[in-house]
Amino acid sequence: MRLLGLDPGLQHTGWGVIEAEGNRLRHLANGAVSSDPSLSLAERLVQLYDGIDKVIGDWQPQEAAVEETFVNKNPVSTLKLGQARGIALLVPSMHNLLVEEYAPNKIKKSVVGAGHAGKEQIHAMVGMLLPGCKIANEHAADALAVAICHAHYAGSRRHLGKAVTMAGGSS
Amino acid sequence: MRLLGLDPGLQHTGWGVIEAEGNRLRHLANGAVSSDPSLSLAERLVQLYDGIDKVIGDWQPQEAAVEETFVNKNPVSTLKLGQARGIALLVPSMHNLLVEEYAPNKIKKSVVGAGHAGKEQIHAMVGMLLPGCKIANEHAADALAVAICHAHYAGSRRHLGKAVTMAGGSS
Repeated sequence: MRLLGLDPGLQHTGWGVIEAEGNRLRHLANGAVSSDPSLSLAERLVQLYDGIDKVIGDWQPQEAAVEETFVNKNPVSTLKLGQARGIALLVPSMHNLLVEEYAPNKIKKSVVGAGHAGKEQIHAMVGMLLPGCKIANEHAADALAVAICHAHYAGSRRHLGKAVTMAGGSS
Repeated sequence: MRLLGLDPGLQHTGWGVIEAEGNRLRHLANGAVSSDPSLSLAERLVQLYDGIDKVIGDWQPQEAAVEETFVNKNPVSTLKLGQARGIALLVPSMHNLLVEEYAPNKIKKSVVGAGHAGKEQIHAMVGMLLPGCKIANEHAADALAVAICHAHYAGSRRHLGKAVTMAGGSS
Protein backbone atom coordinates (compact mmCIF):
# COMPACT_ATOMS: atom_id res chain seq x y z
CA MET A 1 0.00 0.00 0.00
CA ARG A 2 1.50 3.32 -1.08
CA LEU A 3 0.74 6.20 1.28
CA LEU A 4 1.05 9.97 0.99
CA GLY A 5 1.53 12.10 4.12
CA LEU A 6 0.93 15.86 3.99
CA ASP A 7 1.87 18.56 6.49
CA PRO A 8 -0.09 21.60 5.28
CA GLY A 9 1.19 25.18 5.39
CA LEU A 10 0.62 28.20 3.16
CA GLN A 11 4.35 28.89 2.77
CA HIS A 12 5.51 25.25 2.69
CA THR A 13 3.38 22.10 2.52
CA GLY A 14 5.52 19.08 3.34
CA TRP A 15 4.90 15.75 1.61
CA GLY A 16 6.23 12.23 1.97
CA VAL A 17 5.45 8.98 0.17
CA ILE A 18 6.07 5.58 1.75
CA GLU A 19 5.27 1.99 0.92
CA ALA A 20 3.76 -0.05 3.76
CA GLU A 21 3.65 -3.85 3.55
CA GLY A 22 2.45 -5.38 6.82
CA ASN A 23 4.84 -3.99 9.45
CA ARG A 24 7.53 -3.09 6.88
CA LEU A 25 7.88 0.51 5.82
CA ARG A 26 9.89 1.73 2.85
CA HIS A 27 10.68 5.32 1.95
CA LEU A 28 9.95 6.42 -1.61
CA ALA A 29 10.20 10.22 -1.73
CA ASN A 30 9.72 13.40 0.25
CA GLY A 31 9.87 17.14 -0.22
CA ALA A 32 7.88 20.34 0.17
CA VAL A 33 5.63 22.35 -2.13
CA SER A 34 6.20 26.08 -1.60
CA SER A 35 4.18 29.14 -2.55
CA ASP A 36 5.53 32.55 -3.53
CA PRO A 37 4.68 35.13 -0.82
CA SER A 38 4.79 37.94 -3.40
CA LEU A 39 1.69 36.51 -5.15
CA SER A 40 -1.94 36.90 -4.08
CA LEU A 41 -3.41 34.37 -1.64
CA ALA A 42 -5.53 32.85 -4.43
CA GLU A 43 -2.47 32.41 -6.67
CA ARG A 44 -0.49 30.87 -3.82
CA LEU A 45 -3.26 28.32 -3.25
CA VAL A 46 -3.08 27.42 -6.95
CA GLN A 47 0.68 26.82 -6.53
CA LEU A 48 -0.03 24.46 -3.61
CA TYR A 49 -2.76 22.72 -5.64
CA ASP A 50 -0.46 22.24 -8.66
CA GLY A 51 2.44 21.05 -6.49
CA ILE A 52 0.40 18.44 -4.58
CA ASP A 53 -1.29 17.37 -7.82
CA LYS A 54 2.15 16.75 -9.38
CA VAL A 55 3.32 14.70 -6.36
CA ILE A 56 0.23 12.48 -6.65
CA GLY A 57 0.70 12.17 -10.41
CA ASP A 58 4.40 11.28 -10.01
CA TRP A 59 4.07 8.84 -7.09
CA GLN A 60 0.54 7.42 -7.43
CA PRO A 61 -0.24 6.90 -3.74
CA GLN A 62 -3.34 4.84 -2.88
CA GLU A 63 -4.28 6.64 0.35
CA ALA A 64 -3.44 9.97 1.95
CA ALA A 65 -3.15 11.38 5.48
CA VAL A 66 -3.08 14.97 6.66
CA GLU A 67 -2.08 16.31 10.07
CA GLU A 68 -4.94 17.81 12.07
CA THR A 69 -4.43 21.41 13.02
CA PHE A 70 -4.03 23.03 16.40
CA VAL A 71 -6.53 25.86 16.65
CA ASN A 72 -5.44 27.33 19.97
CA LYS A 73 -2.86 29.69 18.45
CA ASN A 74 -3.16 33.03 16.71
CA PRO A 75 -6.54 33.13 14.86
CA VAL A 76 -4.96 34.84 11.82
CA SER A 77 -2.50 31.93 11.54
CA THR A 78 -5.36 29.46 12.05
CA LEU A 79 -7.23 30.99 9.10
CA LYS A 80 -4.11 30.96 6.87
CA LEU A 81 -3.36 27.38 7.79
CA GLY A 82 -7.03 26.47 7.25
CA GLN A 83 -6.88 27.77 3.70
CA ALA A 84 -3.71 25.78 2.91
CA ARG A 85 -5.17 22.76 4.69
CA GLY A 86 -8.28 22.95 2.52
CA ILE A 87 -6.07 22.45 -0.53
CA ALA A 88 -4.09 19.59 1.10
CA LEU A 89 -7.36 17.75 1.80
CA LEU A 90 -8.92 18.60 -1.56
CA VAL A 91 -6.27 17.40 -4.01
CA PRO A 92 -5.93 13.74 -2.91
CA SER A 93 -9.72 13.50 -2.63
CA MET A 94 -10.04 14.81 -6.20
CA HIS A 95 -7.84 11.86 -7.16
CA ASN A 96 -10.34 9.59 -5.33
CA LEU A 97 -7.89 8.74 -2.57
CA LEU A 98 -9.14 8.10 0.96
CA VAL A 99 -7.92 11.06 3.07
CA GLU A 100 -7.48 10.44 6.79
CA GLU A 101 -6.75 13.09 9.41
CA TYR A 102 -4.61 12.51 12.51
CA ALA A 103 -4.12 14.68 15.59
CA PRO A 104 -0.50 15.76 16.25
CA ASN A 105 -0.21 13.75 19.48
CA LYS A 106 -1.48 10.61 17.71
CA ILE A 107 1.24 11.09 15.08
CA LYS A 108 3.92 11.60 17.74
CA LYS A 109 2.75 8.53 19.61
CA SER A 110 2.87 6.24 16.58
CA VAL A 111 6.33 7.51 15.55
CA VAL A 112 8.12 8.02 18.88
CA GLY A 113 5.86 6.09 21.27
CA ALA A 114 4.97 9.19 23.29
CA GLY A 115 2.42 11.93 22.64
CA HIS A 116 4.67 14.79 23.72
CA ALA A 117 7.90 14.29 21.80
CA GLY A 118 9.92 17.23 20.46
CA LYS A 119 10.45 17.97 16.75
CA GLU A 120 14.06 16.67 16.79
CA GLN A 121 13.05 13.39 18.41
CA ILE A 122 10.33 12.85 15.79
CA HIS A 123 12.63 13.65 12.90
CA ALA A 124 15.31 11.32 14.25
CA MET A 125 12.76 8.50 14.61
CA VAL A 126 11.42 9.09 11.09
CA GLY A 127 14.99 8.62 9.83
CA MET A 128 15.32 5.39 11.82
CA LEU A 129 11.95 3.99 10.72
CA LEU A 130 12.73 4.75 7.06
CA PRO A 131 16.38 3.67 6.70
CA GLY A 132 18.30 5.31 3.87
CA CYS A 133 15.81 8.12 3.53
CA LYS A 134 17.22 11.62 3.00
CA ILE A 135 14.77 14.08 4.52
CA ALA A 136 14.49 17.29 2.47
CA ASN A 137 13.43 19.58 5.32
CA GLU A 138 11.34 19.78 8.51
CA HIS A 139 8.04 20.00 6.58
CA ALA A 140 8.90 16.81 4.69
CA ALA A 141 9.88 15.13 7.98
CA ASP A 142 6.50 16.02 9.50
CA ALA A 143 4.75 14.73 6.38
CA LEU A 144 6.64 11.41 6.57
CA ALA A 145 5.61 11.15 10.24
CA VAL A 146 1.94 11.52 9.19
CA ALA A 147 2.40 8.82 6.54
CA ILE A 148 4.00 6.48 9.13
CA CYS A 149 1.09 7.14 11.52
CA HIS A 150 -1.38 6.31 8.75
CA ALA A 151 0.49 3.10 7.92
CA HIS A 152 0.15 2.12 11.58
CA TYR A 153 -3.58 2.83 11.86
CA ALA A 154 -4.54 1.72 8.35
CA GLY A 155 -2.64 -1.53 8.95
CA SER A 156 -4.57 -2.13 12.21
CA ARG A 157 -7.87 -1.36 10.50
CA ARG A 158 -7.18 -3.79 7.66
CA HIS A 159 -6.07 -6.44 10.17
CA LEU A 160 -9.26 -5.85 12.17
CA GLY A 161 -11.30 -5.83 8.96
CA LYS A 162 -9.94 -9.29 8.06
CA ALA A 163 -10.62 -10.63 11.56
CA VAL A 164 -14.19 -9.36 11.42
CA THR A 165 -14.70 -10.87 7.97
CA MET A 166 -13.36 -14.21 9.20
CA ALA A 167 -15.57 -14.06 12.29
CA GLY A 168 -18.51 -13.21 10.06
CA GLY A 169 -17.70 -16.10 7.71
CA SER A 170 -17.54 -18.66 10.51
CA SER A 171 -20.87 -17.77 12.10
CA MET B 1 -17.46 43.23 -17.03
CA ARG B 2 -18.97 40.08 -15.57
CA LEU B 3 -18.23 39.55 -11.87
CA LEU B 4 -18.55 36.59 -9.52
CA GLY B 5 -19.05 37.15 -5.79
CA LEU B 6 -18.48 34.32 -3.33
CA ASP B 7 -19.43 34.01 0.33
CA PRO B 8 -17.48 30.96 1.54
CA GLY B 9 -18.77 28.42 4.03
CA LEU B 10 -18.20 24.67 4.43
CA GLN B 11 -21.92 23.89 4.59
CA HIS B 12 -23.08 26.51 2.04
CA THR B 13 -20.94 28.72 -0.19
CA GLY B 14 -23.07 31.50 -1.66
CA TRP B 15 -22.42 32.75 -5.19
CA GLY B 16 -23.75 35.59 -7.32
CA VAL B 17 -22.95 36.76 -10.85
CA ILE B 18 -23.57 40.33 -11.99
CA GLU B 19 -22.74 42.40 -15.05
CA ALA B 20 -21.24 45.84 -14.34
CA GLU B 21 -21.13 48.49 -17.05
CA GLY B 22 -19.96 51.83 -15.68
CA ASN B 23 -22.36 52.56 -12.83
CA ARG B 24 -25.02 50.17 -14.13
CA LEU B 25 -25.38 46.79 -12.46
CA ARG B 26 -27.37 43.89 -13.83
CA HIS B 27 -28.17 40.62 -12.06
CA LEU B 28 -27.41 37.41 -13.92
CA ALA B 29 -27.68 34.54 -11.44
CA ASN B 30 -27.22 33.54 -7.82
CA GLY B 31 -27.37 30.48 -5.62
CA ALA B 32 -25.40 28.39 -3.16
CA VAL B 33 -23.15 25.38 -3.45
CA SER B 34 -23.72 23.00 -0.55
CA SER B 35 -21.71 20.10 0.84
CA ASP B 36 -23.06 16.93 2.42
CA PRO B 37 -22.24 16.87 6.18
CA SER B 38 -22.34 13.07 6.19
CA LEU B 39 -19.23 12.92 3.97
CA SER B 40 -15.61 13.38 5.05
CA LEU B 41 -14.15 16.90 5.13
CA ALA B 42 -11.99 16.14 2.07
CA GLU B 43 -15.03 14.91 0.11
CA ARG B 44 -17.04 17.98 1.13
CA LEU B 45 -14.25 20.25 -0.15
CA VAL B 46 -14.39 18.40 -3.48
CA GLN B 47 -18.16 19.11 -3.61
CA LEU B 48 -17.48 22.83 -3.07
CA TYR B 49 -14.73 22.73 -5.71
CA ASP B 50 -16.99 21.04 -8.27
CA GLY B 51 -19.90 23.38 -7.53
CA ILE B 52 -17.87 26.59 -7.87
CA ASP B 53 -16.15 25.19 -10.95
CA LYS B 54 -19.58 24.58 -12.56
CA VAL B 55 -20.78 28.12 -11.74
CA ILE B 56 -17.66 29.56 -13.43
CA GLY B 57 -18.12 27.24 -16.41
CA ASP B 58 -21.81 28.14 -16.75
CA TRP B 59 -21.50 31.91 -16.25
CA GLN B 60 -17.97 32.73 -17.45
CA PRO B 61 -17.22 35.64 -15.09
CA GLN B 62 -14.11 37.75 -15.80
CA GLU B 63 -13.20 38.62 -12.22
CA ALA B 64 -14.07 37.27 -8.78
CA ALA B 65 -14.39 38.63 -5.25
CA VAL B 66 -14.48 36.80 -1.93
CA GLU B 67 -15.51 38.11 1.47
CA GLU B 68 -12.67 38.39 3.98
CA THR B 69 -13.20 36.37 7.10
CA PHE B 70 -13.62 37.48 10.69
CA VAL B 71 -11.14 35.57 12.81
CA ASN B 72 -12.26 36.75 16.26
CA LYS B 73 -14.83 33.97 16.72
CA ASN B 74 -14.55 30.34 17.71
CA PRO B 75 -11.15 29.03 16.46
CA VAL B 76 -12.71 25.71 15.36
CA SER B 77 -15.16 27.66 13.14
CA THR B 78 -12.29 29.81 11.87
CA LEU B 79 -10.41 26.70 10.76
CA LYS B 80 -13.50 25.19 9.08
CA LEU B 81 -14.25 28.44 7.31
CA GLY B 82 -10.58 28.76 6.33
CA GLN B 83 -10.71 25.38 4.61
CA ALA B 84 -13.84 26.29 2.65
CA ARG B 85 -12.40 29.73 1.92
CA GLY B 86 -9.26 28.13 0.48
CA ILE B 87 -11.46 26.41 -2.12
CA ALA B 88 -13.43 29.61 -2.88
CA LEU B 89 -10.17 31.46 -3.59
CA LEU B 90 -8.59 28.56 -5.45
CA VAL B 91 -11.21 27.76 -8.09
CA PRO B 92 -11.54 31.20 -9.78
CA SER B 93 -7.76 31.57 -9.69
CA MET B 94 -7.40 28.18 -11.43
CA HIS B 95 -9.60 29.70 -14.16
CA ASN B 96 -7.11 32.62 -14.33
CA LEU B 97 -9.59 35.11 -12.90
CA LEU B 98 -8.35 37.98 -10.74
CA VAL B 99 -9.59 37.24 -7.19
CA GLU B 100 -10.05 40.23 -4.88
CA GLU B 101 -10.83 40.05 -1.16
CA TYR B 102 -12.99 42.56 0.70
CA ALA B 103 -13.50 43.07 4.42
CA PRO B 104 -17.13 42.72 5.62
CA ASN B 105 -17.44 46.40 6.62
CA LYS B 106 -16.16 47.51 3.19
CA ILE B 107 -18.85 45.34 1.58
CA LYS B 108 -21.55 46.77 3.85
CA LYS B 109 -20.39 50.31 3.14
CA SER B 110 -20.48 49.93 -0.62
CA VAL B 111 -23.92 48.27 -0.56
CA VAL B 112 -25.75 50.16 2.22
CA GLY B 113 -23.51 53.21 2.68
CA ALA B 114 -22.64 52.33 6.28
CA GLY B 115 -20.09 49.86 7.69
CA HIS B 116 -22.37 48.49 10.40
CA ALA B 117 -25.60 47.55 8.62
CA GLY B 118 -27.60 44.49 9.60
CA LYS B 119 -28.11 41.41 7.40
CA GLU B 120 -31.70 42.38 6.51
CA GLN B 121 -30.68 45.90 5.46
CA ILE B 122 -27.94 44.50 3.20
CA HIS B 123 -30.24 41.93 1.62
CA ALA B 124 -32.92 44.59 1.00
CA MET B 125 -30.36 46.89 -0.64
CA VAL B 126 -28.99 44.06 -2.80
CA GLY B 127 -32.56 43.56 -4.08
CA MET B 128 -32.89 47.28 -4.83
CA LEU B 129 -29.49 47.57 -6.55
CA LEU B 130 -30.26 44.52 -8.72
CA PRO B 131 -33.90 45.04 -9.75
CA GLY B 132 -35.80 41.91 -10.75
CA CYS B 133 -33.31 39.63 -9.04
CA LYS B 134 -34.74 36.70 -7.07
CA ILE B 135 -32.31 35.91 -4.28
CA ALA B 136 -32.04 32.18 -3.60
CA ASN B 137 -31.00 32.43 0.08
CA GLU B 138 -28.93 34.46 2.56
CA HIS B 139 -25.63 33.00 1.33
CA ALA B 140 -26.44 34.07 -2.24
CA ALA B 141 -27.46 37.53 -0.97
CA ASP B 142 -24.09 37.91 0.77
CA ALA B 143 -22.30 36.75 -2.37
CA LEU B 144 -24.19 39.31 -4.51
CA ALA B 145 -23.18 42.00 -1.98
CA VAL B 146 -19.50 41.03 -2.46
CA ALA B 147 -19.95 41.21 -6.25
CA ILE B 148 -21.55 44.69 -5.94
CA CYS B 149 -18.66 45.83 -3.72
CA HIS B 150 -16.16 44.57 -6.29
CA ALA B 151 -18.02 46.36 -9.10
CA HIS B 152 -17.71 49.56 -7.07
CA TYR B 153 -13.98 49.25 -6.37
CA ALA B 154 -12.98 47.68 -9.68
CA GLY B 155 -14.89 50.49 -11.49
CA SER B 156 -13.01 53.14 -9.48
CA ARG B 157 -9.68 51.45 -10.21
CA ARG B 158 -10.37 51.29 -13.94
CA HIS B 159 -11.51 54.93 -13.92
CA LEU B 160 -8.32 55.89 -12.08
CA GLY B 161 -6.26 53.74 -14.43
CA LYS B 162 -7.68 55.63 -17.43
CA ALA B 163 -7.01 59.01 -15.81
CA VAL B 164 -3.42 58.03 -15.11
CA THR B 165 -2.98 56.77 -18.67
CA MET B 166 -4.36 60.04 -20.05
CA ALA B 167 -2.12 62.09 -17.73
CA GLY B 168 0.83 59.97 -18.86
CA GLY B 169 -0.08 60.44 -22.51
CA SER B 170 -0.25 64.22 -22.27
CA SER B 171 3.13 64.68 -20.58
